[in-house]
Amino acid sequence: MTTPEGNKLWGGRFTGATDPVMERYNQSLPYDKRMWREDVEGSKAYARCIHRAGLLTEGEMVDIVKGLDKVGEEWSSGVFVVQKGDEDIHTANERRLKELIGDVAGKLHTGRSRNDQVAVDMRLWFRNAASSLKSRLVDLMRVMVQRAESEVKVLMPGYTHLQRAQPIRWSHWIMSYVWMLRRDYERLVQLSDRSNISPLGSGAIAGNPFNIDRVTLATDLKFSSVTDNSLDAVSDRDFIVEFLSWASLMSIHLSRWAEDLILYSSKEFGFVTLSDAYSTGSSLMPQKKNSDSLELIRGKSGTIFGRCCGFMMTLKGIPSTYNKDLQEDKEAMFDVYDTLEGTLQVATGVITTLKIHEEAMRAALSPDMLATDLAYYLVRKGVPFRTAHGLSGGCVALAETKRCTIDKLTLEDFKTVSCMFEKDVLEIWNYETSVSQYKAYGGTALSSVQEQIHNMLNWLSELRI
Amino acid sequence: MTTPEGNKLWGGRFTGATDPVMERYNQSLPYDKRMWREDVEGSKAYARCIHRAGLLTEGEMVDIVKGLDKVGEEWSSGVFVVQKGDEDIHTANERRLKELIGDVAGKLHTGRSRNDQVAVDMRLWFRNAASSLKSRLVDLMRVMVQRAESEVKVLMPGYTHLQRAQPIRWSHWIMSYVWMLRRDYERLVQLSDRSNISPLGSGAIAGNPFNIDRVTLATDLKFSSVTDNSLDAVSDRDFIVEFLSWASLMSIHLSRWAEDLILYSSKEFGFVTLSDAYSTGSSLMPQKKNSDSLELIRGKSGTIFGRCCGFMMTLKGIPSTYNKDLQEDKEAMFDVYDTLEGTLQVATGVITTLKIHEEAMRAALSPDMLATDLAYYLVRKGVPFRTAHGLSGGCVALAETKRCTIDKLTLEDFKTVSCMFEKDVLEIWNYETSVSQYKAYGGTALSSVQEQIHNMLNWLSELRI
Amino acid sequence: MTTPEGNKLWGGRFTGATDPVMERYNQSLPYDKRMWREDVEGSKAYARCIHRAGLLTEGEMVDIVKGLDKVGEEWSSGVFVVQKGDEDIHTANERRLKELIGDVAGKLHTGRSRNDQVAVDMRLWFRNAASSLKSRLVDLMRVMVQRAESEVKVLMPGYTHLQRAQPIRWSHWIMSYVWMLRRDYERLVQLSDRSNISPLGSGAIAGNPFNIDRVTLATDLKFSSVTDNSLDAVSDRDFIVEFLSWASLMSIHLSRWAEDLILYSSKEFGFVTLSDAYSTGSSLMPQKKNSDSLELIRGKSGTIFGRCCGFMMTLKGIPSTYNKDLQEDKEAMFDVYDTLEGTLQVATGVITTLKIHEEAMRAALSPDMLATDLAYYLVRKGVPFRTAHGLSGGCVALAETKRCTIDKLTLEDFKTVSCMFEKDVLEIWNYETSVSQYKAYGGTALSSVQEQIHNMLNWLSELRI
Amino acid sequence: MTTPEGNKLWGGRFTGATDPVMERYNQSLPYDKRMWREDVEGSKAYARCIHRAGLLTEGEMVDIVKGLDKVGEEWSSGVFVVQKGDEDIHTANERRLKELIGDVAGKLHTGRSRNDQVAVDMRLWFRNAASSLKSRLVDLMRVMVQRAESEVKVLMPGYTHLQRAQPIRWSHWIMSYVWMLRRDYERLVQLSDRSNISPLGSGAIAGNPFNIDRVTLATDLKFSSVTDNSLDAVSDRDFIVEFLSWASLMSIHLSRWAEDLILYSSKEFGFVTLSDAYSTGSSLMPQKKNSDSLELIRGKSGTIFGRCCGFMMTLKGIPSTYNKDLQEDKEAMFDVYDTLEGTLQVATGVITTLKIHEEAMRAALSPDMLATDLAYYLVRKGVPFRTAHGLSGGCVALAETKRCTIDKLTLEDFKTVSCMFEKDVLEIWNYETSVSQYKAYGGTALSSVQEQIHNMLNWLSELRI
Repeated sequence: MTTPEGNKLWGGRFTGATDPVMERYNQSLPYDKRMWREDVEGSKAYARCIHRAGLLTEGEMVDIVKGLDKVGEEWSSGVFVVQKGDEDIHTANERRLKELIGDVAGKLHTGRSRNDQVAVDMRLWFRNAASSLKSRLVDLMRVMVQRAESEVKVLMPGYTHLQRAQPIRWSHWIMSYVWMLRRDYERLVQLSDRSNISPLGSGAIAGNPFNIDRVTLATDLKFSSVTDNSLDAVSDRDFIVEFLSWASLMSIHLSRWAEDLILYSSKEFGFVTLSDAYSTGSSLMPQKKNSDSLELIRGKSGTIFGRCCGFMMTLKGIPSTYNKDLQEDKEAMFDVYDTLEGTLQVATGVITTLKIHEEAMRAALSPDMLATDLAYYLVRKGVPFRTAHGLSGGCVALAETKRCTIDKLTLEDFKTVSCMFEKDVLEIWNYETSVSQYKAYGGTALSSVQEQIHNMLNWLSELRI
Repeated sequence: MTTPEGNKLWGGRFTGATDPVMERYNQSLPYDKRMWREDVEGSKAYARCIHRAGLLTEGEMVDIVKGLDKVGEEWSSGVFVVQKGDEDIHTANERRLKELIGDVAGKLHTGRSRNDQVAVDMRLWFRNAASSLKSRLVDLMRVMVQRAESEVKVLMPGYTHLQRAQPIRWSHWIMSYVWMLRRDYERLVQLSDRSNISPLGSGAIAGNPFNIDRVTLATDLKFSSVTDNSLDAVSDRDFIVEFLSWASLMSIHLSRWAEDLILYSSKEFGFVTLSDAYSTGSSLMPQKKNSDSLELIRGKSGTIFGRCCGFMMTLKGIPSTYNKDLQEDKEAMFDVYDTLEGTLQVATGVITTLKIHEEAMRAALSPDMLATDLAYYLVRKGVPFRTAHGLSGGCVALAETKRCTIDKLTLEDFKTVSCMFEKDVLEIWNYETSVSQYKAYGGTALSSVQEQIHNMLNWLSELRI
Repeated sequence: MTTPEGNKLWGGRFTGATDPVMERYNQSLPYDKRMWREDVEGSKAYARCIHRAGLLTEGEMVDIVKGLDKVGEEWSSGVFVVQKGDEDIHTANERRLKELIGDVAGKLHTGRSRNDQVAVDMRLWFRNAASSLKSRLVDLMRVMVQRAESEVKVLMPGYTHLQRAQPIRWSHWIMSYVWMLRRDYERLVQLSDRSNISPLGSGAIAGNPFNIDRVTLATDLKFSSVTDNSLDAVSDRDFIVEFLSWASLMSIHLSRWAEDLILYSSKEFGFVTLSDAYSTGSSLMPQKKNSDSLELIRGKSGTIFGRCCGFMMTLKGIPSTYNKDLQEDKEAMFDVYDTLEGTLQVATGVITTLKIHEEAMRAALSPDMLATDLAYYLVRKGVPFRTAHGLSGGCVALAETKRCTIDKLTLEDFKTVSCMFEKDVLEIWNYETSVSQYKAYGGTALSSVQEQIHNMLNWLSELRI
Repeated sequence: MTTPEGNKLWGGRFTGATDPVMERYNQSLPYDKRMWREDVEGSKAYARCIHRAGLLTEGEMVDIVKGLDKVGEEWSSGVFVVQKGDEDIHTANERRLKELIGDVAGKLHTGRSRNDQVAVDMRLWFRNAASSLKSRLVDLMRVMVQRAESEVKVLMPGYTHLQRAQPIRWSHWIMSYVWMLRRDYERLVQLSDRSNISPLGSGAIAGNPFNIDRVTLATDLKFSSVTDNSLDAVSDRDFIVEFLSWASLMSIHLSRWAEDLILYSSKEFGFVTLSDAYSTGSSLMPQKKNSDSLELIRGKSGTIFGRCCGFMMTLKGIPSTYNKDLQEDKEAMFDVYDTLEGTLQVATGVITTLKIHEEAMRAALSPDMLATDLAYYLVRKGVPFRTAHGLSGGCVALAETKRCTIDKLTLEDFKTVSCMFEKDVLEIWNYETSVSQYKAYGGTALSSVQEQIHNMLNWLSELRI
């Protein structure tokens, strides 16, 4: 019995010809062939499973497993030849298997559907992807913490609303991002653990009718457990949504980090200089050195988020179980993974090779940033903070009126604002003293910053990557 | 020293008048007053904290705490009078506190900034919100599982691609959503646990300079620990993004569930009838009964997702630490919470009162849905599945040619397709027998469905809600 | 015949009670009452229309129109009393009309459905909203052009990649945004023209069976034409999507503008100072002056975009014609309109009152920004640009090596890079001369900028607002 | 003077090596090479332009133009060899040009920047893309209208809320989507007209200093005019946002259309059968025939929308003028274009080959769908509509009580509800009569539907495609 679509998995019934545009529109092989390894691995495990259930003889099982190994070698060495009708990786692999080992290949799909097959392939692929991203993330965190540790003495202006707020440590700024990334890491662990369960044995929708042992099958594939409901299992793409949402949030963190460094590397700030390796020049302006690496990190965060939105919209519009709309899941997953692999490595390169300009950072500290210290001075003399804040504001205003910086006000000037000011007010204008106040945990005093670095290093050293 | 903006927290410096449009554009009190209770609670704990640090005398602390209690009572009883300059809940409460207890109120803000204050208020508010949502979610899961348990004998068509695929249990369909909701529950637990840490003591950006004990302060407010970096702490809105992403995914689950029930309640399917309490009629067509409740659940899932997108875009576009853009966080959080409270309760009501039409479900089962069983019949006789699938497809085609349903084919008909068919092939056409095959865990056999229900009930019974 | 839901438009059939949570979840009156005026206006026109079609006597029509006027007056003066069963503005108005004029009120809805009624109300409301936004937009453009005209002599650094690129006119920067807003204006005109067609007479879905004259009805309501297909007409929300997409893009323009000004108002740039009326202070740091107005404009652009995403997702998930999901359209429309009204006015206030620091802008011009001019110098001597670009880059590098700015290089220095350099190379270092080169239309030469201002003023003067 | 990045356009200055990961992360050639034709075309026009401005001799211009033609031929015939340093199409083409014609190639970039070069390339590319999409869209509309015209007699149930509402014509349903597509067409015309202006001559940011004639240059490239502001011109991506928003809305229309047809092709509805050419089967279930084409159209609409969201988020987060983030524009544009080309052709194929089941549609009409006609019957006897609606609802309820369909009620039954019912009420139960009532334009009467078809055909015949 032959049909024009002879090598399609569902080829027994159709008689009409397909439209070539439709053929292209429908096929996923150009991208899902990335999962050839997982498809082979999943099929081998399934062959062993149905052998255990008595559906394959020992010999049949061995033939299939060896055949699949050969298919895998062909992919691995780049000699696998795609045929016209290979609409997806599953079809392609089974078609090739049959060519290699004959009709016994047709027993592999017993009780299995592409619905549970693709679900297991994706979960296997994602498990490896998550593992790789965890490593990249930890690499980035490590170099950030190292810089924070070695440059802990450097002071710079801390900003809120992009206005100079209070002096802080450069390391404190670096560490603020490390904590974000640590939350990202924790979330990634949770979501990849949650995804590590086996849908195999769910069939198309109703389950598996051949008394297979799903738990042993799952263990064979190193899954931690099995899905509980076959309808849910074949269409559950929560792990993709979780991954894309996770990627969007981490990208936003890195986008904000890039934004800060773009600002800091502008002529106006001048706090840092990017290595040439992460900059590019202008085709017109010979003097330009642009932070392209950072701008790409920032820009690509939008694109990642778009993938998340797109897939969520796709998912929202469908009824229960498997619908072909779900095919949109794979390009989103692959694309975002690839982008993040690049982003994390580029970010690691940028921070590793970044040159900082300590004097420029120091020069950007200005006495008015200590206006809060002036208020605290009064608080320490017993003035309620709200009053002290007002009086300090008065001193700022006075300095503006006198067109001088606030540290140039004389004791007499201060006394016109409040009689609480005494001689020691003139000792406030010291940035080192200012930062050293913030000793409560999480603050910018040396001891606090060192403590947070210490805590982070401990955590990093205990990771099993 | 008086200014036109005398009662604003930052009032000491400005001399210009503000634009009334700007005043409205800037103020958050109309919505952030929802957090009055958390603001009072956080301020009381902070008063106790700075008392312990020696910044307030026992008497001052008591005055402030009692004053704050009075402020809370005014909100609680609806008599709190908002004044023109009350731009946010923090300003409003401190202004009122000062009216009630005088200048000592000005000591409360010592070392604190609105940046850490609003962060702590939001985390407290969110903790309660998450707790309430957990309860609502469990309520919904409970009624779903109860129905699944009591109606486990009911068969219906299972669909893929909205085409009848295989017979399944109605309870299997119900349970497929319960497992989605359980993942939602697990995620909510993880993200709300992660958010339950105290940013208080981070100040505006640099930390707290008065040797306060942040851990005791956190414990007082029932936080599990403290934030590690003050820059991060004042601008970390990850918990909002996590909440909005979580809400979007759960809403998509409920949207798909609503979509299924909208289909099932159409005349064409006729599987279920919604209670009048969750339907509405038409202003023009007297016979209409519309599933408005389900359509709203489905429609509002889009709006929730929009809130998530909107806030992520806002967050993406800003540099480090606090920027006023972050004020967009609150309406998103409140809105999504309110919508979900409604959605979960309405969904619970719908499923509780839904009438099912067992006969209509049964009548929708058709013999061609057993074509896979026909293939399995051959598999059990030793035919490779792929061949069996083709032969079964041949039978389907033959029935189409003969314009009969597949169960009307005679043994002779079957034999024209394959000589492997024997007399017992005629016993296949039994839906009960069909579903009973799927005994592997997660499948639609009675024992499997009962096992998943049992597992879910166990889990529910162990929850500490 | 009475029922518990007696005053609901669809009240004839139901017997069950509704769930109060469902009642709240379902009702739209809290927000759609904003369209009371349009609902009254549309109903009056419809009464006149069905009178012309012979369905109402003259007297009945007059009674209804007068009754509706009375309803409108009650809303206008704030005395309209909402009743429990008033689920939306249409129900509320018809309920009140009946109380005022008796049973004849029941004739108003003849041949009409809430489906075409709400569609017409929304189009009327949106027409007014678009008109108001056009005015606000033109106000903003006018003040921007005025500043551009009066400050055309001011030079500043032009940036690409946030790196100083070439000297430009401040007015050129201002005008770059005016052209964006002009595109926004043009798009708003196109989309509001497209929306100005009447769906009235489409009924629930099938059309109107009473031979009404839809064109005269449309003209009565100042629509430019009528919808062509009743199925489309009752569920077409393209105009809402177009509005929300439009709003998102305009908001992005204003977000980028705000971002520029936030940068320019930082201490590091120091190019501009915001009026106090559009700034706020810090609750902790007395010296702070934050650009809250600009940050809110930037932040709210995310929220607006979220409304667009949310509604598009809602729309995407539904089948043909009216589904209750569409009720999500109104809050999106109202919210975005309100936000934009604020945004445009605040932006107008900001630009009107902004103080610029010409010297700071001038001081930020640096000789290396003329490296392109150095290349152009060589081009004018016949050197191919690509070679000239390389040689100019060589001069930049030489200056870096000598730790001087490029304008301090001597003629001898230049000659070490290329013998093409002659004495006149030393005359390059003049910013006025540099900008005066860019005389091609659209460039930053005085004449070019004045020409674009002139063109824009002409366009503005011809607008019919 | 040689450098490791010798053939990069900005190669004169850098000395460090680049990171290979960064190299990949940065390069756009893998996708922007699609614009090779536009890049060549734009460069040829620019060469002619600077020749006219006296910057190239006739011979130089001819050499460059011929060289560019050769470059184009290499791309066209697939022999262009990409070199390692070719980071984008502009660099690649200029590098190759230099190899072909020597140093004079270096004159081509005089006064030009990649900023205005890429902007012009994209606008040229987009102009062609829009033109192709217009044709595809019109093809789809044409086949839809043809079907509507030839099947205008077929009746089917019209749905609201997915509940049977009123009988309508099948053609009326088809046409409802044609009007949506016509709005899409109109929008596409407007936005592509708006994008058809030339940014060339804007340089990097400040404009062009060589007195080139931008208008003649624009005319040479068939642009309708020139951009007005060089800062805006180099970073204006409004046309991309407009395109992506447009594509999202059109995709939503097609998603809703696909959703309808997926429903109609389910066993439960049974109104249509898709051609095998646009369906696929199941790997497990031999009887399945799935509407994959429609599900892909529906699913891909989410992905398109995601591209729109992603790019808008990217754009939102950047300051003025060109930033590298903008590089994300191209993949979005190409991807969405490719998807839509497929979507429109597949949709055209689906509708062309769709088989309809007139009897099934007719059989789905049920007497209760004429309840509105019953109310109209009373209206025609003078009963106010609201009362008539209630009475008709009473009849529906009565039929439910009597467990019969409403058309089986006797005159006596009707009279128990209202004495206004007379013998002729029994003539209502005719679907042809029902639809023939809706004669107002836009309604479902034969004459109305034919009029809308006629209007659409007129419009189509006047298009200049």
